[in-house]
Amino acid sequence: MDTIALVPNNSLITETPEEGRQLAVKLARLIIKLTQPDEEKRKQLRDVYGNDAMMLIAVGQTVATEFATIAAANNYWQK
Amino acid sequence: MDTIALVPNNSLITETPEEGRQLAVKLARLIIKLTQPDEEKRKQLRDVYGNDAMMLIAVGQTVATEFATIAAANNYWQK
Amino acid sequence: MDTIALVPNNSLITETPEEGRQLAVKLARLIIKLTQPDEEKRKQLRDVYGNDAMMLIAVGQTVATEFATIAAANNYWQK
Amino acid sequence: MDTIALVPNNSLITETPEEGRQLAVKLARLIIKLTQPDEEKRKQLRDVYGNDAMMLIAVGQTVATEFATIAAANNYWQK
Amino acid sequence: MDTIALVPNNSLITETPEEGRQLAVKLARLIIKLTQPDEEKRKQLRDVYGNDAMMLIAVGQTVATEFATIAAANNYWQK
Amino acid sequence: MDTIALVPNNSLITETPEEGRQLAVKLARLIIKLTQPDEEKRKQLRDVYGNDAMMLIAVGQTVATEFATIAAANNYWQK
Repeated sequence: MDTIALVPNNSLITETPEEGRQLAVKLARLIIKLTQPDEEKRKQLRDVYGNDAMMLIAVGQTVATEFATIAAANNYWQK
Repeated sequence: MDTIALVPNNSLITETPEEGRQLAVKLARLIIKLTQPDEEKRKQLRDVYGNDAMMLIAVGQTVATEFATIAAANNYWQK
Repeated sequence: MDTIALVPNNSLITETPEEGRQLAVKLARLIIKLTQPDEEKRKQLRDVYGNDAMMLIAVGQTVATEFATIAAANNYWQK
Repeated sequence: MDTIALVPNNSLITETPEEGRQLAVKLARLIIKLTQPDEEKRKQLRDVYGNDAMMLIAVGQTVATEFATIAAANNYWQK
Repeated sequence: MDTIALVPNNSLITETPEEGRQLAVKLARLIIKLTQPDEEKRKQLRDVYGNDAMMLIAVGQTVATEFATIAAANNYWQK
Repeated sequence: MDTIALVPNNSLITETPEEGRQLAVKLARLIIKLTQPDEEKRKQLRDVYGNDAMMLIAVGQTVATEFATIAAANNYWQK
């Protein structure tokens, strides 16, 4: 099927919440990349949503949903 | 009722997060296929959402929600 | 109050993930039926959302949310 | 503050999934009632969303989210 | 940073589901207040979303999400 | 990759629900900052969504989702 990696390092485990947050952003971006593989078009679309208030909020919603899963996977980084 | 399979292999269990992510994408696509069974129309619609920034973000939101369930089903791939 | 059944068989328990997925689709459709009881109008609206990329994605989001509950109710079909 | 009851019988517990589903619908409607207390206006707005495919899907999303909470509160109606 | 209280009484614990629901509404409103501190503008915007079917549904979605957290915090008000 | 901090103090743990709520707002804002790093453009976009009823509701939805994770991480601030 699709040949790009959808989960960097094939793991949801991170050392810290900060790294977990970065992973959430990457997971969200990789789905966009999978759905629109053309780098040039993605660049144009990034320019669109980076300048549209509603789309920026929607990006935040998607990242928040990804992060919820990552945080649970890491037991909220509690020792 | 509907005769297409909605869950490949009839299982939420995967070996790795990467495969879990691929399953999340498939689950999301199969609902679209169920709702719009016409392959030609789906092809046209894919072209629409692949070039629309807001729709790409919304695809990401749906995949994130599917993935949350799959990740929980796999106990986040923790041994 | 409303007299249509909103949960087929009055149960969230299914034998398999596939049946759980089908139940998620039914639950989502029954809310639409409750909100718009006119069969003819629903038929027209289905034609609308079946041909609209954003709406197809939104259908997927709703089914994903219903499925999350059903999957949890079935303990993710783990023995 | 607001004087309408937002939770019928002040309880999330129901006998069955079907009743839980009906409660989810009621909870969602009561928030709309709280936000738009004018019965006549709500009637007009119901006519709007009952005939709009995207809004019907969005109603389904809201009910699904309410139901997730009710189902968890009832331990998914497992004995 | 921001100086308005975002959580009344600085607690998610309530006596009943009804009070939990009222808290969910307050939490949602306080984020709107934080984002648009001008009382007069908020009044105008309330008039907008109180008369827009899609926005009323979206208000319901946000309250449902807040309530899910409050209900979990109160262990669903069981015994 | 991105060089701004996405999680202040690299922790989801807060003393109180109020601080948890403030953290949820910050997490949401930092994703917007990451996606649109230009301070001047963000200022313009804030003016847009602060005066748009639907966008204000959507901001609330995103904060609610972030807060759900933070509240779980803090075990709902129960001692």
